[in-house]
Parts: sequence; structure tokens; C-alpha cells
Amino acid sequence: MDDRLGNIEAYFRKIHALDTAYGLFEWDISTIAPRAGVPVRAGLFAILAEESFAMGISPEMESNLKYLEENIDSLDSRHKAMARVARREFDAKRKIPPKLAGEFAELSSKAKAVWEKAKEENDYLSFAPVLKEIVEYQKRFVDLRGWEGHPYNTLLDDYDEGMNVDKLDSFFAQVQETVVPLVKAVASSSRQIDERLLFMQVDLQTQKKLSAFLMDKLGFDSSRGLISESAHPFTINFSANDVRITTNYNVQKPFTSVFAVMHETGHALYEQNVDPSLAGTFLENGANMSLHESQSRFYENLIGRSLSFWVHARDSIVEILGPDFEMFSALDFYESVNIAKPSLIRIYADELTYPLHIMARYEIEKEMIGDSADFGSLPDLWAEKYMKYLGIKPETDTEGILQDIHWSGGSFGYFPSYALGSAYAAQLKAAMSKELDFDRLVMQGNIAEITAWLKKNIHSYGKLLTPDELVMNACGEALNAKHYTDYLSEKFSAIYQ
Amino acid sequence: MDDRLGNIEAYFRKIHALDTAYGLFEWDISTIAPRAGVPVRAGLFAILAEESFAMGISPEMESNLKYLEENIDSLDSRHKAMARVARREFDAKRKIPPKLAGEFAELSSKAKAVWEKAKEENDYLSFAPVLKEIVEYQKRFVDLRGWEGHPYNTLLDDYDEGMNVDKLDSFFAQVQETVVPLVKAVASSSRQIDERLLFMQVDLQTQKKLSAFLMDKLGFDSSRGLISESAHPFTINFSANDVRITTNYNVQKPFTSVFAVMHETGHALYEQNVDPSLAGTFLENGANMSLHESQSRFYENLIGRSLSFWVHARDSIVEILGPDFEMFSALDFYESVNIAKPSLIRIYADELTYPLHIMARYEIEKEMIGDSADFGSLPDLWAEKYMKYLGIKPETDTEGILQDIHWSGGSFGYFPSYALGSAYAAQLKAAMSKELDFDRLVMQGNIAEITAWLKKNIHSYGKLLTPDELVMNACGEALNAKHYTDYLSEKFSAIYQ
Repeated sequence: MDDRLGNIEAYFRKIHALDTAYGLFEWDISTIAPRAGVPVRAGLFAILAEESFAMGISPEMESNLKYLEENIDSLDSRHKAMARVARREFDAKRKIPPKLAGEFAELSSKAKAVWEKAKEENDYLSFAPVLKEIVEYQKRFVDLRGWEGHPYNTLLDDYDEGMNVDKLDSFFAQVQETVVPLVKAVASSSRQIDERLLFMQVDLQTQKKLSAFLMDKLGFDSSRGLISESAHPFTINFSANDVRITTNYNVQKPFTSVFAVMHETGHALYEQNVDPSLAGTFLENGANMSLHESQSRFYENLIGRSLSFWVHARDSIVEILGPDFEMFSALDFYESVNIAKPSLIRIYADELTYPLHIMARYEIEKEMIGDSADFGSLPDLWAEKYMKYLGIKPETDTEGILQDIHWSGGSFGYFPSYALGSAYAAQLKAAMSKELDFDRLVMQGNIAEITAWLKKNIHSYGKLLTPDELVMNACGEALNAKHYTDYLSEKFSAIYQ
Repeated sequence: MDDRLGNIEAYFRKIHALDTAYGLFEWDISTIAPRAGVPVRAGLFAILAEESFAMGISPEMESNLKYLEENIDSLDSRHKAMARVARREFDAKRKIPPKLAGEFAELSSKAKAVWEKAKEENDYLSFAPVLKEIVEYQKRFVDLRGWEGHPYNTLLDDYDEGMNVDKLDSFFAQVQETVVPLVKAVASSSRQIDERLLFMQVDLQTQKKLSAFLMDKLGFDSSRGLISESAHPFTINFSANDVRITTNYNVQKPFTSVFAVMHETGHALYEQNVDPSLAGTFLENGANMSLHESQSRFYENLIGRSLSFWVHARDSIVEILGPDFEMFSALDFYESVNIAKPSLIRIYADELTYPLHIMARYEIEKEMIGDSADFGSLPDLWAEKYMKYLGIKPETDTEGILQDIHWSGGSFGYFPSYALGSAYAAQLKAAMSKELDFDRLVMQGNIAEITAWLKKNIHSYGKLLTPDELVMNACGEALNAKHYTDYLSEKFSAIYQ
């Protein structure tokens, strides 16, 4: 048995090696690679990606899984988890005929170009037929893979093991009940927060110093990772001992990078804190999309956008930013970085209105996959939902339904994890607050103690437990939107009185 | 036939993809990767390296080669060359039993540690038995692979297709005849060149600006490459459109990086100028070690250490370096960067004495592989040769026989390519001078015209022609040391009158 297990692990490790090589390529092209060299190398690395895919659905893989599952009772928890994770991957890929997968890859690469042009030209109708075709492929995939309750469930489960429309309908109903009236109250509040400091010019060198300060403050271990620059911030890891984040500096808007760095540091802490013994298995990464997002949101918002943090860090940050910032108090910083108002573009949305952007997308996706969407009139549906939730609607498709890249690549079921991440973050804060004095720790700059709690309860497990098990163990209950809505109500009612 | 050729090319491309991934990993660990993450990733990338090796010696590879060779007359020049290059690789690897190769890999990794310690502790005798064992393995490899004339020939041919001891004996005899008396004359010359400018402090930012200036001046295409930093300068390429060099900045010795950058830019120009149609084949790199080195030496020495270059570039360089350098004329720069005197350490040797360091190593390697070396007394042999050629000898093993890493890794036959590189560079300059006014072009800063000649005659071919064919076509004659010795005599006689 040990021999067979050894062979299976070697097989998994080779897939992991191919994926790591591909990840390194992605890191490289996102950060420093000269544009001109990308096509040739993309062709070469596609060979490795294809091999990884082929190994993932091969008869050998199937027999490996069968062996693991037949012997599941005698496996240790690590091999049990490997079997579970590998089975999910296998099923998601294996049931799609390669021909169909190839057709879809071609379609989605074409679709991306069509979407880009449509967005540029504010012309949703030129994208509509392609979007319809993409959704039809997704539905065929779901039918081939099987689904229960609602076809959308299979896609939701891809990003968030165990997630489904029942849970999300109930989640968003609670969000809607609390957040929609709260946003209305904030929008009609007479309170005007001074936003000058958000637009004060800060040179590149200073911003880099500030990044280093923030990463250090939040506990990023620089001996096991680094920061670089790319067009869009992201986190990537090659093991718990090599976790890399990127940011993008804007001299005119220094706080864009400030919160990008705190966000990515949250992702990075999760990866740096995975138990080292999981290195090289399928288990060494964060549990799923929404728990990963919960960590980025936790460090970005629950810590980085808290009053306690600015009380603690204001002096050090002003020292880095320079004398122009001396006029601003901790409270000025806190309020400026928490200005909330309804807006059209999701990626620029504030912490309060953000989940409403997601809710609109969730409902539209559910209709598309559930077969009740009229693709010709989706912008009307979009406008209707934005009016209902945010009280505004886009004048153009570019600022509306065409703003996100996700659908052109066939990503359906991805958006909800953004909102769930924020909700899990609030829920984890509530849970740890039974043991820790959160605000006092942040005010003392003792983030390490908070991170230790998260490491013990979430980070260290990697994928060893399911997301549901992790949340249940850490919080003593399943997903509960109330912690999130309470947090938003309390915070933004106070700011906007 | 087209189908079969297509399959063979796909097979080669996959090996190339695995090697490219490994190259990217090497780039990454040499430049930015956090130390802590290296072991896990090294294990993963070793899996890819092993697969590349296994594919390179597989029965499928053998059958591919057989097919190509049986149909050689109907192949185009590109496929013919691929067959030639792949056959060399295959034969070099295939005839070594994997068990023996494994044993040697283990030995050489152990040997590296032994060598490091011995060098640190100035204790050759602790390294001697390991060195002997390494040489014994090399001799077994050579016996298994077969050899003609002299066993060392097989190893020389690995680095320089077509090279052998007869050619090298004659080459070094000519070098010895001219350079040894020249070095003596220089060493006893009363001429004292002011070396102050070599040790003037220059900050990092300024040195980076200077790197960019030099690369641009020499014609490096920054849209198809970049510069980074590493402990030891090197060049790596992922295609002609992605060629990367590194340097290492020393604030106290700015000219270390100046010439490292020009050296690596020479390597890089070679790779950037390979015909793009060779991308993704086995032919897209420089022809061999010594021709590659000829290009780095060409740009570093024949251009970078020429009076014409400093006449052209002195003002711009002083503008970058700042007012402290205004006191130095073009001639001051020229003479300072060409100070020649016998020294003990090869990597710090000047252009004139450099080949004598190589000659000593060549002769000792020949004895080791030819079975006439007494390993216990090699330091005596070393001292004897240094006395004879350079008129000095080391007081310690650290500064003598233990200074280079090469032998601990089993690299025998590599050193000569350094000297051959310089010789080919001089020979190419002589050949192009029939068509171009070299000094005038350099003095005008018109390096592009010189590079165009090299591109047309050397660079563009990649490995399409053999090194011997390339040299014959470009120069109208085979390797001829006289161009090199004439160049050195003329240059250093003039400087030291």
C-alpha cells in the first residue's frame, strides 16, 4: 500500500510541478517579461498546461482515485483530503469531452476580444450573441457534469465547495434587508467627509516605503515572500515559503496601493501560514475562493479600514508620507478611507455598497444559467437592479453590464465569493472576539495575536478540511450573514451618524 | 512524412518547453526568489528536468533520430540541423548508464561542498581524493561514449563542436609564443597607469543609468529583453524576443559592472539576433560556447575597451557619472580600463594575461583526463605553470588551484572556450575590417553597422551551421590565433610603449 501511495503522490507532485512552472510563467509575464517575448513562451508553456490537464483526467488518475476511495478508511487525514480534492478536480474536467472543452477555449478567447471591443465602443448588442453562446456552453457543461436543485449550483460549487443558490438566496436576502436601506440613509446623509487626502500626490519611492511598512505591520514574512508591481494587483505562491504579492502605484491616488497591499497581504498571510507539511500536495493552498477572499478583506477592511488601525499607525504613516499629511488626524484618515456612496463601477466601490454590486450580478447569473434570461435586454435588467439596490443606473453599457471581464471568459459563480469573503471576515472577527479584544490589539499594533488565531483556526489547514468544516470549527456555526450586516450597520451608521 | 516530422517537432518542442520552464526557475532563483522557498521548488523543478532528460534519451527519441537520419537527404537545412544537434545531445547522454549518471550527480553535489570548504580552509589535499574520483568518472564517461586521438577530445567537443587537443595545442603554442614575452615586457615596463578612476565611488542609481546607457549604445533591444541583478552576472534567453542579462553592482568599483554589462550585452545581442524562424526548435541558441564567448568578449573588449569607444562615449559617460569624473580624458579611461599585470585570480585578470590563466588550466586538464596527473602534487604543477607563464605563483591553494568551481562540478573542457572566445572575437574583427572601417564606426558610435555584420555572418544562424562552418564562412579561414596575438601585441605594446 505504501508503494502505491508513494506512486500516487509522485503522480500528484508531477501535476503540481507542471502547474508551478505555469504559475511562474504567469508571475513573470505579469511583472517583468518583455511583451515581445510572450507569444513564443505562451506556446511553450501551453504544452505544460496541456500535459497537466491530460494527467488530471487520465485513466491513471482515475485508477489512482479509485484506489484512494476504495481504501479511504485506512488512509490518514491528509491522504483522505487529497482524494477529496483530486476527485473534485477530476470530475469537473473529466466529464467534459475534450472536443467540447477545445471549442469552448476557442470561443472564450474570441469572446474576450469581442467583449473588449464592445466595452470600448459601448455596444452591448455586439457582445450579446457571444455571451449567449458562452452561457449555452456553460449549461451543456453543467448538464454533462450533473447538478442538483439548480444548474447554477454546480458552478457555485466550483469556486466554493458546498455553496448553492438556496444558501445564497438567503444570504443576499439578509444583505438586501439591511444594506439597501443603510446605503439609502448614507446617500441622503448631510455628512460630507473631506476626501482631499485621498488625492494628494505621493511619489513612487515613498509609496514603496509605505508598502514595506504596511506588509511588515500586518505580519508578512519578507524572508518567505516579496512584493513586485503589475497592472492588476494579485497574490501567487509557489509554496508557503515563497508567497508573492503585487501592487500598482498611482502617484495621484496613493491609497489605491495602500489598500491593494493590505488586501494582497491578507491573501499572502493565508498562504504563508499553511502547515509546511502540506507542501507539494494538492492541499497546500487556501481552502476556496470565498475563504481566501475573507482573509484579504479581513486585513484590508476589518483591520486596514478600522479606526483602531489608524489610531495606531497614523503617526508612522504620516512620517513616511511626509509633512503634507501632518494636518490629518487618525479620524481624518479613518473617515476618508471609508467614504461610502453609490457608484457604478464594482472595482471602485466602497466596503458598504460593494455587496450590492455582487447581488445584482448573482441574480443575473442565476437567470442566465437558469434559462430565464433574455440576452437582448440584459442592460435593462442591470439598470433595474442598480436602481433598486443602489438608487442609480448606468448611462452606458461600458459603465454597466460590460464593466467586468468575467463572463467573457466563462466565469459564472465566481462573483458571489467576493461578497461571501466579506461576510466570512466579519463572522471570523465575531468568533475571535469571544477570545480576543480585537480593537485593543489593533490599537496596540499587535496584529500578530489576531493572525495567530486565524492561523490556528483557518490558515494552517490549507485544504485539509472543507470550507464548511473550517467555518463550523472556527465559528461554531455555518455561514451567518448577520455578523456581516451588523458590522456594516454599526460601522457606517456611526460614520454617517 | 510531414506528419512524422510534425510529431518529431512536437516531441522536440516539449523538451524545449520543459527546459524553458527550468530556465525560468533558474532565472527566478538567481534574481529575486526568497531563499526559504528554494528547496521545495527545486524539488518540483527537478521533476521537470528529469522528464526532459528522460525524453532526451528515450526509445522514441532514438526512433525520431533514426527517422531523420534515414531521410536526411530529403530534409530541408533546418531539419538537417535539428537532426545533427539532437544526435549530439542524445549520444552525450544515452551512452551513460542512468545508474552511473546518478552516482556522478551525487558525487558532484558532494564535491561542491568539499571544494567550498577546502577553498575556505586553504586545504587542497582534502579536495584531492574527490577531484580524483570526479576525473575517474569523467574518464569512464569518455570511454563509454568513445573518443578519437585523445580522451579529452570528447569533452572539448561537448562545449565546442569540432574542437580537439591538436587544434588547441597549436593554438596555445602560438599564444604562448607571443603573449608570454609580451606579459613579461609589460610587467617590467616603467609605465605606471593611474588607476584611481577604477575605485571612485558611484551610487547604485547612477550605475543603473549607466547600464541602460551602455546597453542602448551597444544596441540591446529593450523591447525584447531586460536587465536585472544577481550575485554573478549572466545572460539567459527564452526566445530571441526575451533575452535577459544581469549584473552585480559594487559601489566601490563601478567599472566591474560597466564591463559585466558590456560582456552580457554581447551574449544578449547574439541571442536577440538569431533568426526568429528558429524559435522553439533546438537551433535557436548560439552555436557553441566559444562563439558565444566571442560575442561577449567582442562587445566587452574589442569595443568596450577600445580607445575609439572612449573617444566616442567619454562625454556622455562623464555626464552620467557626475562632475568627479570630469578630470579624466578619454585616454585616461582607455588606459585605466586596460591596466595589465600578472595576477593570480582568473576572473579578475585583464585582457592580456587572461589567456595564460586558461592555458595553465587547459594543460592540467589534459593531463588529468589523459591519465598522467599526480593528484597529490597538482598545486606544484599549478605553481610551475603560473611561474612559467605569468612570472608569479600563488602562496595558497585558495588563490591557486582551488579558485574555480568548474572541476568540482565535473566541467572539463569548458575553460578553453574562454580563450577561444577572445581569439574568435579578434579574428572576426579582422574579417569584418575588410569591409568596414571598424575604428571609425566605433568612434562615431555606429555600433549598429558592426552588429549588422555579426548578425549577418554569425548571430542569425543560431545552430543552423556548425561552429566550424560559421567561422569559415565569416572569416574565409578556420581558427587562426594570429589575429588574436597580433591584436594583443599591437594594443598592449602601444599602451605600455
